[in-house]
Amino acid sequence: MTPIDVTREKQAAAQEAATLVSDGMTVGLGTGSTVAFLLPALADLHRNIRCIATSPQTESIARQVGLMVEPFRDVISLDIAIDGADQIAPDGWLIKGGGAAHTREKLVAISAQRFIVIADSTKTVNNLKGPVPVELLAFGLGSTLHRLGNVTLREGVPHSPDGGIIGDYHGRLDDPQSTAAWLSGTPGVVEHGLFPPEMVTTIIVGHTNGKVEQRIITNNGQ
Amino acid sequence: MTPIDVTREKQAAAQEAATLVSDGMTVGLGTGSTVAFLLPALADLHRNIRCIATSPQTESIARQVGLMVEPFRDVISLDIAIDGADQIAPDGWLIKGGGAAHTREKLVAISAQRFIVIADSTKTVNNLKGPVPVELLAFGLGSTLHRLGNVTLREGVPHSPDGGIIGDYHGRLDDPQSTAAWLSGTPGVVEHGLFPPEMVTTIIVGHTNGKVEQRIITNNGQ
Repeated sequence: MTPIDVTREKQAAAQEAATLVSDGMTVGLGTGSTVAFLLPALADLHRNIRCIATSPQTESIARQVGLMVEPFRDVISLDIAIDGADQIAPDGWLIKGGGAAHTREKLVAISAQRFIVIADSTKTVNNLKGPVPVELLAFGLGSTLHRLGNVTLREGVPHSPDGGIIGDYHGRLDDPQSTAAWLSGTPGVVEHGLFPPEMVTTIIVGHTNGKVEQRIITNNGQ
Repeated sequence: MTPIDVTREKQAAAQEAATLVSDGMTVGLGTGSTVAFLLPALADLHRNIRCIATSPQTESIARQVGLMVEPFRDVISLDIAIDGADQIAPDGWLIKGGGAAHTREKLVAISAQRFIVIADSTKTVNNLKGPVPVELLAFGLGSTLHRLGNVTLREGVPHSPDGGIIGDYHGRLDDPQSTAAWLSGTPGVVEHGLFPPEMVTTIIVGHTNGKVEQRIITNNGQ
């Protein structure tokens, strides 16, 4: 059996996703190591796209490769958004935010007509496993951590660009819908890294032979 | 019929609430015109309480009257919190945040062993009416407003101390529970001003004759 070449898999998925973009589109750019392959691919293929970045890192690389990046403030809707994922469940639930960018990633994903997830084959899992990244308000942090229980704070990347504190929730995850609703409803939680299938249009998984597998998530009505 | 003296009513409720505090307690201080009567009353009655403020305005006044205010960061639980409300429904649901402080107010309220609401008699309503204050992330604001619909942004106090944009949601409110869950689950919404009865311990309403009416909300298990 050929060993898995994660780099080649990421590249294949990113290349395929870049072909889904057309000139003139407004494109949401995710964050992370798979998106790092997407940015030059987009710049190679398209001269005339307007981009929204989900993190300062992505914005910086996107500008370096020659993409036009604009602020996400007055824009109401994006034509497409492309991003990686930390874990992809068979039913289309995702865990995102290993890179501490999940709040902006979710806002970009939900604002896009089509949200394309790109990943290497190691990201597909039978069951989501924690932790779930969370962004928390600094005000009342000790109390919020106490209410959530089971949250560790990140040492390396403690703050999001929106000022929140990044942590990881290690609690139960057998019912992502109810965990998501509970995290959303907990005061002090700005956003969490559980993305429901309703946000996802297509999942593109790269394989080591350079081929890609596309899965259309049908329950979002697109 | 005696005309309603709102100032006297606020003062009566605030005075009564101040007597519920004991020396040595950690006390959450709300924000607004009724709390403005609470702060000097607390300072008069208690030499030895530690306070957490829900807004820069409250913190400033509290210090001026001689109260000890500390940051809300490592503190896990407060003994008591006292705050006003914009509307109080018969079942104990509240609308708060006219003063743009609802995110911090909710964090303080939910972290307190006892949450005491103080109000003049005009704040009690048969049915909650909008708008519901919301705090929104600046990133993706146009898109969030589009998804929420029916939100106006404040002109006077556009930012919370946590960096969010303050607006008012004018949509349906016949089922506060489902509106609250929907607002909480909408990406881009940091917090909303609907407070469920589970957060509330006691409601103290002042009357123009200087008396107060106390209502214990029993469904929070205190």
